[in-house]
Amino acid sequence: MTVNLAMLCDYYELTMGNGYLKTGLSHKNTYFDVFFRRVPDGGGFVITAGLEQFIEYIENLSFGAEDIEYLRGKKIFDSEFLKYLENFKFSGDIYAVPEGTPVFPNEPLMTVRAPVIEAQLIETFALLTLNHQSLIATKANRIVRAAQGRAVLEFGARRAHGASGALNGARAAFIGGCEGTSCTLTGRLYGVPAGGTMAHSWVQMFDSEYDAFKAYCELYPDGAALLADTYNTLKSGVPNAIRAFKEVLIPRGIKNFAIRLDSGDIAYLSKKARKMLDGAGLYECKIIASNALDEYIIRDLITQGAEVDVFGVGERLITSKSEPVFGGVYKLVAVEENGGIVPKIKLSENLGKIPNPHFKKIYRLFDRESGMALADQLCVYDEVIDDGGELTIFDPAATWKTKTLTNFTARELQVPIFKGGRRVYDPPPVAEARACCARQVGLLWDEVKRFENPHLYYVDLSRKLWDIKQRLMRG
Amino acid sequence: MTVNLAMLCDYYELTMGNGYLKTGLSHKNTYFDVFFRRVPDGGGFVITAGLEQFIEYIENLSFGAEDIEYLRGKKIFDSEFLKYLENFKFSGDIYAVPEGTPVFPNEPLMTVRAPVIEAQLIETFALLTLNHQSLIATKANRIVRAAQGRAVLEFGARRAHGASGALNGARAAFIGGCEGTSCTLTGRLYGVPAGGTMAHSWVQMFDSEYDAFKAYCELYPDGAALLADTYNTLKSGVPNAIRAFKEVLIPRGIKNFAIRLDSGDIAYLSKKARKMLDGAGLYECKIIASNALDEYIIRDLITQGAEVDVFGVGERLITSKSEPVFGGVYKLVAVEENGGIVPKIKLSENLGKIPNPHFKKIYRLFDRESGMALADQLCVYDEVIDDGGELTIFDPAATWKTKTLTNFTARELQVPIFKGGRRVYDPPPVAEARACCARQVGLLWDEVKRFENPHLYYVDLSRKLWDIKQRLMRG
Repeated sequence: MTVNLAMLCDYYELTMGNGYLKTGLSHKNTYFDVFFRRVPDGGGFVITAGLEQFIEYIENLSFGAEDIEYLRGKKIFDSEFLKYLENFKFSGDIYAVPEGTPVFPNEPLMTVRAPVIEAQLIETFALLTLNHQSLIATKANRIVRAAQGRAVLEFGARRAHGASGALNGARAAFIGGCEGTSCTLTGRLYGVPAGGTMAHSWVQMFDSEYDAFKAYCELYPDGAALLADTYNTLKSGVPNAIRAFKEVLIPRGIKNFAIRLDSGDIAYLSKKARKMLDGAGLYECKIIASNALDEYIIRDLITQGAEVDVFGVGERLITSKSEPVFGGVYKLVAVEENGGIVPKIKLSENLGKIPNPHFKKIYRLFDRESGMALADQLCVYDEVIDDGGELTIFDPAATWKTKTLTNFTARELQVPIFKGGRRVYDPPPVAEARACCARQVGLLWDEVKRFENPHLYYVDLSRKLWDIKQRLMRG
Repeated sequence: MTVNLAMLCDYYELTMGNGYLKTGLSHKNTYFDVFFRRVPDGGGFVITAGLEQFIEYIENLSFGAEDIEYLRGKKIFDSEFLKYLENFKFSGDIYAVPEGTPVFPNEPLMTVRAPVIEAQLIETFALLTLNHQSLIATKANRIVRAAQGRAVLEFGARRAHGASGALNGARAAFIGGCEGTSCTLTGRLYGVPAGGTMAHSWVQMFDSEYDAFKAYCELYPDGAALLADTYNTLKSGVPNAIRAFKEVLIPRGIKNFAIRLDSGDIAYLSKKARKMLDGAGLYECKIIASNALDEYIIRDLITQGAEVDVFGVGERLITSKSEPVFGGVYKLVAVEENGGIVPKIKLSENLGKIPNPHFKKIYRLFDRESGMALADQLCVYDEVIDDGGELTIFDPAATWKTKTLTNFTARELQVPIFKGGRRVYDPPPVAEARACCARQVGLLWDEVKRFENPHLYYVDLSRKLWDIKQRLMRG
């Protein structure tokens, strides 16, 4: 698949681009924020992901001859604009929150400062990449937390929404905390551990289930995982697996093997299978469960004492089935005029839908003693939080609710990614983004991590930013 | 983006492939069916899509040096297998139902006949492509039917699950009946009409809403669609649009223009806006509505008399939000042995989950008089339905329920796509698949098209196939 992704943009980015050029506005520097208004599944936070693919896109962004010809054929684009596209190179600045970071509603995951014509052209891809991967990383993190230390593997490629849905979905799932994936290409491209053993067809191709298991154990003794439900899990699958393990693996001293249950009542079958395995002395045999799992089913299974060591999670993770839409938006928050930055706002009748204006910074404030995250504060770009002293923060909607922090540290969340069109950031390996996620989620209070009705983490505005927003809302 | 998709497969396809080679089974010819068990959203039928991308994949399928090195590094694959992959070329036969065809549960949308090692390697991509695009085409068709003749445009790229989710999702939405898309690349690659006008940022970049509208009308007089809700739809957006239309477009004799409503209560706002537009004599001005629409909301809006001419549908179409998983599966149904075809079955405790065995044909039976589709019949590959005479069909679960057809025609649904690894089918342009969809959905009774609790269309088995299935189930 060789596709130039420059044209993977909403058509209106092009009509507006052409329009900005013709009306003399195109070189005006603007600031656009990417942010979301609510966390999927009613959760307490989102795990950011997708930045690496966005960086790749920006670095490779160019319009080919076929793109230009297609647009020329539309007969609405000026030749000056088409020439502009031919020579297009992103020249702006981009700031973003690194992948694997927990973030909250109304915080800019990414800020683009660029001539409006450029900022607009990259809107669609920025949103679709960050929306997709943040959705899956967030869902994976919920599922991994539900599994309470048991491994979770991503198995969903066949139900993904197309090739990049599978490839990058598995990448995001790993950042969110999965231990591996069934998607081989994600393994090869991103170093995510890829694995898998057999389908029902393997079992059907042999004269008997036992023959299929025995052949598999001989081929792949270390880590053999036998699919036990092709005929009848307890009557045939588990006994045949036990026989194959005992005949092929035990004599070789191998301790790393498993059965996989892919249908039926997992709680019941896993408990029965565990007893049968233990009865045969195969205490080391792991039990892998798959079949339309998600965080709710896993929580229930564990509550009911299911004897599952590894969860394989497919369609409900790779599509984020319970909430497949991540609503990140891309909004104009400031324009440069006469050498200054003029904040902009888009009004709405719904107070919660009014974006935070201006070029901003996000600070995360941590308790110096426990290390836990206390609150985030959005500030104007030129403000600096002094974490040597005291800081009184307040709820931006209910300003009488204040809290004074003393013994805290402040850390900026966004880092520079591009400066003047040049990349100034090396995306870390995904394993590092995954470790960052685990570490930072560990710094959130359990109340913020509840699946339903979590405690709302504070995302406050600095006094200066709050004042500017009030002034703009008054008009 | 240059990615070789050969490795976009579940890892177990490779462990099984290597295993088939080592156990001497790899060249055994097998038959695998792609089918689904239930229609998403509880609907009556599915629209097939994705075949063209699957064909492209098969034709370009080859493993690169980096793929082989990655697999070699796993230290479980035989050098003979790696050599086999290096020279891999699909050599089998593929039969499939053309894109845009309505299909029903338990019918093979696609049948692969190939040496098991090959049939297995293409499983993941076959499923992810057909599952994704059939999901979106089916959803689009529901939405288009809800719109009762009003145009539906696909606007969802920014909420798609990655690049191919956007690109091919828009393609599938067009096949399902959308009139166009906002995704420029889908326009360029597949000839789907791509369009779009402005975002809120366009309006914010000008000194006033009126200036923004006027500039836009001057730039793109024909088909100008002004986004009316940046500040206040009825107090400012619609009046400013009316003024711009009257000052810029009407004097030039232009009749093709619109306003777009993207927030608020669409039923209320569209009726008020219609009155204002008509009051200004702008009867020709169309009203486009967008904002989290789907078939249910569109049906309600129309019931309430909303004055909407065009629906722009985004996130709930491109992710099929109400049901984002399409559960197509890939099951072994037969194996060639000693020159014959031996049917295979996978048992399950749930009768409905037992696949129809054997290498099959699907016939669709039409009433000769009305032209309407009466039933489908699955037959063994060597059966021929004689539509000159009578045919008695029966319910495969309740065999006493029979129906005798007399004045009917029979048409095979699957067509050959590959023979001996060579493509023997030219995928039609998407516009043709879209026309095929519209035509064939027109041949289904309204009862089958209900959104909830539709009439179950008959998918029966021939007596011969039914007998074979019974025999296999008895074991």
